[in-house]
Amino acid sequence: MSSLFGHAFRISTFGESHGGAVGVVVDGCPPRVALTEAEIQVDLDRRRPGQSEIVTPRDEADACKIVSGVFEGRTIGTPIAVIVYNKDARPDAYREMETAFRPSHADYTYQTKYGVRNWQGGGRASARETIGRVAAAAIAKKVLKELAPNLEIVAYVKSIHALTAEVDPETVRFEDVEANIVRCPDAPMAQRMIDFIKEVRSEGDSVGGVIECVVRGVPPGLGEPVFDKLEAELAKAMLSLPATKGFEIGSGFPGTLMRGSEHNDAFEMRDGKVRTRSNRSGGIQGGISNGEAIFFRVAFKPTATIFHEVDTVSTTGENTTLKARGRHDPCVLPRAVPMVEAMTALVLCDHALRQRGQCGTV
Amino acid sequence: MSSLFGHAFRISTFGESHGGAVGVVVDGCPPRVALTEAEIQVDLDRRRPGQSEIVTPRDEADACKIVSGVFEGRTIGTPIAVIVYNKDARPDAYREMETAFRPSHADYTYQTKYGVRNWQGGGRASARETIGRVAAAAIAKKVLKELAPNLEIVAYVKSIHALTAEVDPETVRFEDVEANIVRCPDAPMAQRMIDFIKEVRSEGDSVGGVIECVVRGVPPGLGEPVFDKLEAELAKAMLSLPATKGFEIGSGFPGTLMRGSEHNDAFEMRDGKVRTRSNRSGGIQGGISNGEAIFFRVAFKPTATIFHEVDTVSTTGENTTLKARGRHDPCVLPRAVPMVEAMTALVLCDHALRQRGQCGTV
Amino acid sequence: MSSLFGHAFRISTFGESHGGAVGVVVDGCPPRVALTEAEIQVDLDRRRPGQSEIVTPRDEADACKIVSGVFEGRTIGTPIAVIVYNKDARPDAYREMETAFRPSHADYTYQTKYGVRNWQGGGRASARETIGRVAAAAIAKKVLKELAPNLEIVAYVKSIHALTAEVDPETVRFEDVEANIVRCPDAPMAQRMIDFIKEVRSEGDSVGGVIECVVRGVPPGLGEPVFDKLEAELAKAMLSLPATKGFEIGSGFPGTLMRGSEHNDAFEMRDGKVRTRSNRSGGIQGGISNGEAIFFRVAFKPTATIFHEVDTVSTTGENTTLKARGRHDPCVLPRAVPMVEAMTALVLCDHALRQRGQCGTV
Amino acid sequence: MSSLFGHAFRISTFGESHGGAVGVVVDGCPPRVALTEAEIQVDLDRRRPGQSEIVTPRDEADACKIVSGVFEGRTIGTPIAVIVYNKDARPDAYREMETAFRPSHADYTYQTKYGVRNWQGGGRASARETIGRVAAAAIAKKVLKELAPNLEIVAYVKSIHALTAEVDPETVRFEDVEANIVRCPDAPMAQRMIDFIKEVRSEGDSVGGVIECVVRGVPPGLGEPVFDKLEAELAKAMLSLPATKGFEIGSGFPGTLMRGSEHNDAFEMRDGKVRTRSNRSGGIQGGISNGEAIFFRVAFKPTATIFHEVDTVSTTGENTTLKARGRHDPCVLPRAVPMVEAMTALVLCDHALRQRGQCGTV
Repeated sequence: MSSLFGHAFRISTFGESHGGAVGVVVDGCPPRVALTEAEIQVDLDRRRPGQSEIVTPRDEADACKIVSGVFEGRTIGTPIAVIVYNKDARPDAYREMETAFRPSHADYTYQTKYGVRNWQGGGRASARETIGRVAAAAIAKKVLKELAPNLEIVAYVKSIHALTAEVDPETVRFEDVEANIVRCPDAPMAQRMIDFIKEVRSEGDSVGGVIECVVRGVPPGLGEPVFDKLEAELAKAMLSLPATKGFEIGSGFPGTLMRGSEHNDAFEMRDGKVRTRSNRSGGIQGGISNGEAIFFRVAFKPTATIFHEVDTVSTTGENTTLKARGRHDPCVLPRAVPMVEAMTALVLCDHALRQRGQCGTV
Repeated sequence: MSSLFGHAFRISTFGESHGGAVGVVVDGCPPRVALTEAEIQVDLDRRRPGQSEIVTPRDEADACKIVSGVFEGRTIGTPIAVIVYNKDARPDAYREMETAFRPSHADYTYQTKYGVRNWQGGGRASARETIGRVAAAAIAKKVLKELAPNLEIVAYVKSIHALTAEVDPETVRFEDVEANIVRCPDAPMAQRMIDFIKEVRSEGDSVGGVIECVVRGVPPGLGEPVFDKLEAELAKAMLSLPATKGFEIGSGFPGTLMRGSEHNDAFEMRDGKVRTRSNRSGGIQGGISNGEAIFFRVAFKPTATIFHEVDTVSTTGENTTLKARGRHDPCVLPRAVPMVEAMTALVLCDHALRQRGQCGTV
Repeated sequence: MSSLFGHAFRISTFGESHGGAVGVVVDGCPPRVALTEAEIQVDLDRRRPGQSEIVTPRDEADACKIVSGVFEGRTIGTPIAVIVYNKDARPDAYREMETAFRPSHADYTYQTKYGVRNWQGGGRASARETIGRVAAAAIAKKVLKELAPNLEIVAYVKSIHALTAEVDPETVRFEDVEANIVRCPDAPMAQRMIDFIKEVRSEGDSVGGVIECVVRGVPPGLGEPVFDKLEAELAKAMLSLPATKGFEIGSGFPGTLMRGSEHNDAFEMRDGKVRTRSNRSGGIQGGISNGEAIFFRVAFKPTATIFHEVDTVSTTGENTTLKARGRHDPCVLPRAVPMVEAMTALVLCDHALRQRGQCGTV
Repeated sequence: MSSLFGHAFRISTFGESHGGAVGVVVDGCPPRVALTEAEIQVDLDRRRPGQSEIVTPRDEADACKIVSGVFEGRTIGTPIAVIVYNKDARPDAYREMETAFRPSHADYTYQTKYGVRNWQGGGRASARETIGRVAAAAIAKKVLKELAPNLEIVAYVKSIHALTAEVDPETVRFEDVEANIVRCPDAPMAQRMIDFIKEVRSEGDSVGGVIECVVRGVPPGLGEPVFDKLEAELAKAMLSLPATKGFEIGSGFPGTLMRGSEHNDAFEMRDGKVRTRSNRSGGIQGGISNGEAIFFRVAFKPTATIFHEVDTVSTTGENTTLKARGRHDPCVLPRAVPMVEAMTALVLCDHALRQRGQCGTV
């Protein structure tokens, strides 16, 4: 099913960009977890459009409403439904997409798959779809706080186009990420990125980049052999985000240039614990967390919708051109940072509960 | 569950390296598909150890047996179980691993997760586990031949360490891949790769690289919005293979260095069909195939087991050293080529059946 | 997961009796199916409280809103979310249940399982939870109309306490069921049932009975061997409805009093089709529909909430008594008829899509 | 998928009556559970043909082999595959079924669904399919012994045709069930049942009956609201067994003849615990176990295959007659007792692990 994710902590999202609402149903959440709408809203605000001058100006408060599963401020074990109504929809700005397919967008493939599509604002392929994920992940984080109190997820912009930040995954802090609107913890580089995105936008163009994510304080033992390896689940989670083109964990693609004798992470006893001397594994071995920091990178392509006139094809099969209107991000990465965090939290929460189910403790 | 994969064409694998047997149960296979053990054996032989001088010398015929789901040479709609018995197990060669953890292998994480492990030959973390996948995929390919007769999957070694082949994904042929033991269709480079692997092995070391895979003749419409995007499913499939560290599709990580105006794939009518002028999308847009060739790359780290004495930790928590014996691949890529193909076939077959279920035709 | 149902046509329900809203997300619905809120409302109205003098007087319009998955009057293949807000909640009427457990209700088990519960109106154990099912089933029926145009589901009250109707499953019509408020197509018996329920209610007591359901025009081939036998799926579907205690199909429990030679349904050719002479199988053999009418019966216990003072236990573990207030059905069967229909439609729609996926046609 | 059962303790069965083998893969089993083939064999022996003079004489030792997931006598957390090879297959005895459909058997529906079938011995519709279930359940029982040490499942023949035993579910002992070949703990009635089955068999006919099952020592809190109610899961589990026509729990169908004031189970404090004074709920309220004994009944129809000449239809669509040969049970109930037990254990083990996953403890 296209819109279900997770096995023990299972979410089901719904909603189109210009339909009535977007949201999520979370099934399997542990009971007695303190939860308020305000806590969910914090993450939704980090994801919402209109939050800064380098993102889409669509003006959505994205105010969430919990309509089930919470009673007197605590989860009760039953499905938690969270809903956000679309307010600032402007379907007319998408009128051209009714009859022509935007290049590198989902217009053509949705039409071909289903024989019908909601052409307003990208429908289900819009980044608005991620609201449900971010809301569910806010809940997952509360659960993780109980199951693995030291666990900490920090995602940040590692590069925009050719501008690459210097960041130490072992020490980077959430506060430094949130300190600027591009969400890059290397402050001088962040400013250059912001200037560059503005310049690209002024040209009606778009740009991509790489987000890095680190998870510290992961209990060893999360993830499973074979298909549900933790890195496999993370890879799926990340590639399910709009505009992603690649995922690498630990040493990643550059690791293919090393020999085994260089690449292997020697074990050693440190502070009474089994630790690795290096961390080319990225915190996961054989699909299972080893207690070291998990870190990975996700490639985001430049936004498909640009304000140039482009060659394309009409829904009736004729060559034509299209010039987009509407409101679009010149670069998705600043708003994608909380999405990467969210998908990471969903994967880890799911596996923490699976681990507790099969093996008794996390 | 760790060992289930797929939704409509669902497989369940089992088996350890040195347990009695490895195999797979395939549930949901369409009926009336012609199928023989010999057809499955072809792919198992491409995966098996001992097939050439640059892979592990473990001598396993990996002869498969279909024990259910096939009658008079055709599938009957019920679960197909395929079993391969382990013959050349030599548990004694792993005696050291009983008490010490191999660096960058799954020994430590399995022990930590489960509190117990089969230390013989890596247990479930062994590449032998992929026998079930390859067998199931041989069946998936037969199904795909009926559902999408033009579909063709070709995987090949793109690079070994710093040696990179020149290959055109649009035209590369299976025959050229199989023409040499490293499975690189660029013949001169293949020879250099083979020589390099031999050299690395003679030093008791190991090496990694990149496998590229192309799928041509894909019907448009496969894959789903949101979580089960086709690239997300492929990413999970690939990262679930042993020793993988990265996945990128279409323009991948290098695509982050382009602007939207360069990166977008303009649509045009060609031979009466909607086609794209370039293919930076890698054949998938919005999670759904657009009919162009799907191509992606997978990073494999150097094999963890090397024949150097290495620092590690014992199961009782003391610093120690370990020098592996046993039989191991100095480079997993030649044998991983059929594994990448297999996971690709499993994803596509599953989505073809899902598409037929929901939308009526593939 | 407690609130997911179906494999190909998969629904996820949410909502408590006195939370903000109840509803459902339907994933996997075929595209291009005409669908309006009014069509869903028809079935919700048949299920809603306050519809007649023999059901609970809670006054809920149960007006539904489709917030995603439908565009310009047709499904678009993405998740369909349907929401109904609770309007006439009166939590104060349940204040006693905050501190004492109603006998034979879910108060005690929810509290024990989760360590917390929404005591207002029964929370998730309320019959309001079935709103999501009935809404989803209204969609399933539209899908079935396309996949199996002759398929017709008719459920009706077969007995109330000792009052048993005479009904011929082969010919009973929906109109006759809806002709009276108890939903029994045997009109004279219906009147006796209505009078009896009023009498029982005036005594502050409650009563149960049996609902029978027949499905005519089922295509042969629906259902699967082994665990997902069609009767097994129906049994689960029915026993998942509140207040059910039994399920029997075809000859059912009385069939255990026959010999094989009496019980077997001889095959014969009739009108060029393979038909059975009798139908003790109830339209399903080996878990798969054979084209004959499917019919089964479901036992509903007397409503747990009655207006007598009853012995029970407090949440702090003391013997106490409880006298319920609130608004309750003296007999759930009239409103359970559309619920039985709904669960039947969900099972059949799911299996029709599964069959199309695996075998190519329904 | 037809052959998967369970969510946390998930099994995947395979095999036809006259294919090479039958078996099961168990995924999600907790690690470190002591397990031997001999323990599994005990239950397989109770299920096997040829065990007494009132069951089919097919001579199968049904010797099982664990081929993965167990190391040095303990489960290791990875999939456990158990295989039983078919030895005494006699396909020729089924030659008539190649061209004609047995009434009330699965021959016709399999052929219609799949367009192909293994006509030898009923293929997947054979009771041999339950070997995988019984083997998996033997493992589930070992897990339950750790999670819920007081839990005890006892199933027994309650009636054969009109012969009904007197049994007290609260006290009936496994030993008394196993004391005779019909598996009825009421010894005098058991003898009458045995005599009756022999008589029916001598007439070439068959007979059905009712199996009752009781589970004592169930921890409260197992089962989930809504679709996965414990009784719903049990209903599905039972109706998935061959030849079943009905399921009722607690008061069941007779309970529809009671009023709420009679039917409700008053709570009371007893020995410091919340207990119910009566147990018409059958140990489950709101889908969740309440700690009282769970008990339910399952109706089995008379075996379809009898040795009379019967009217039927040929695979080419002509009226014909058929007289079965082969080896068949005149009454399935004695061998179905361990099957009912097995399905009960699978449901409870799955829900115990789900409960531990979501709520932290069983």
